[in-house]
Amino acid sequence: MTMVDHRFDPVDKATFRDGMSRLGSAVNVVTTISSGTRYGFTASAVCSVSDTPPTLLVCINRASSCFHAFENAAHFCVNTLMPGHECISDHFGGKTSTEDRFSVGDWEVGLTGVPVLANASVSFECGRISSVDEATHHVFFGRVIDIRQNDQRATLLYCMPTSMPRPHEGSVSRTGDRLAVYTGPPVSLHTKAKLVPIVQGRTTEFR
Amino acid sequence: MTMVDHRFDPVDKATFRDGMSRLGSAVNVVTTISSGTRYGFTASAVCSVSDTPPTLLVCINRASSCFHAFENAAHFCVNTLMPGHECISDHFGGKTSTEDRFSVGDWEVGLTGVPVLANASVSFECGRISSVDEATHHVFFGRVIDIRQNDQRATLLYCMPTSMPRPHEGSVSRTGDRLAVYTGPPVSLHTKAKLVPIVQGRTTEFR
Repeated sequence: MTMVDHRFDPVDKATFRDGMSRLGSAVNVVTTISSGTRYGFTASAVCSVSDTPPTLLVCINRASSCFHAFENAAHFCVNTLMPGHECISDHFGGKTSTEDRFSVGDWEVGLTGVPVLANASVSFECGRISSVDEATHHVFFGRVIDIRQNDQRATLLYCMPTSMPRPHEGSVSRTGDRLAVYTGPPVSLHTKAKLVPIVQGRTTEFR
Repeated sequence: MTMVDHRFDPVDKATFRDGMSRLGSAVNVVTTISSGTRYGFTASAVCSVSDTPPTLLVCINRASSCFHAFENAAHFCVNTLMPGHECISDHFGGKTSTEDRFSVGDWEVGLTGVPVLANASVSFECGRISSVDEATHHVFFGRVIDIRQNDQRATLLYCMPTSMPRPHEGSVSRTGDRLAVYTGPPVSLHTKAKLVPIVQGRTTEFR
């Protein structure tokens, strides 16, 4: 069922992308294998769906050079990157050819034969269970059959545009801009969870 | 089309939730109005789908007390929370009754009549265009027809469990644990974007 309300125009693309950049998301490389060839692409559009049974979704542009491999894949792996993996993100998000992409990173073989990044923050190996097209993208759902976690608890996040130069590790205050991190106590909604405000601006107030 | 590979068992729920917590996500309150009554729930499962046209998705548990309102909603709003909005997250994620939820937060009325959080990090007012059921959840897609952004560029993120007490603002180093933030230069994949490694642990290394 598709419904479109023609009384309201969609926002423009730039406004949407700028707004979406505020949500923050992990940087992932999603991989599969087809006829002996490994495929992978960088994706931020990965989302938990259900824990009963464990299910996630991934969005891929149907114009992607590796879409054909994922459209027919029975299995795939979401490899969430670590700090230091920016080069892998670049490599799988750029114009690098299919074969050359896996020259960067340490790749192992998962239960189902798909490529698994050895030192990912976390990898979710999945059996594809269903999919749906929406706008330019294909949304595919995976049942999670194996998870590997890095001993070091860290994740590379993509969040909010900036042109700030790289600060030293541990630096949070800058002239004119401020990026601050708050580690709160668990709240009732998220048992054992941490809420991390990421703040960019001059006038941050914390409770 | 639904495919299930019976050779592999899904991972257990706790493993899945722990793995997923590493991805990091904004904390959002998704709202709608039905027969004059406002409904809302806290959601981290919100994901960009396409910018052509601007489209996002939201996952809601079909067992949610307000599922019936969203199942039939023509419009809804994703309100991404700011640091300091932890109480709103709690309120819309707990057992508070439908009417009482909106007693917390400053709520305005959007173009389509849905509740919009006045000082959200960003709010995406949407027309619902389609939906699909997957596992315990209902995934609904929205065309974004209005976006409001807070002047202060900040977002409340949910990322990685911890039992650490709250540090002072700006503190990134703690005895035994470390939470660090890195603000890198734009990389080719994400024009004007920032990659933010969030690191928890003793042995963090930055490039």
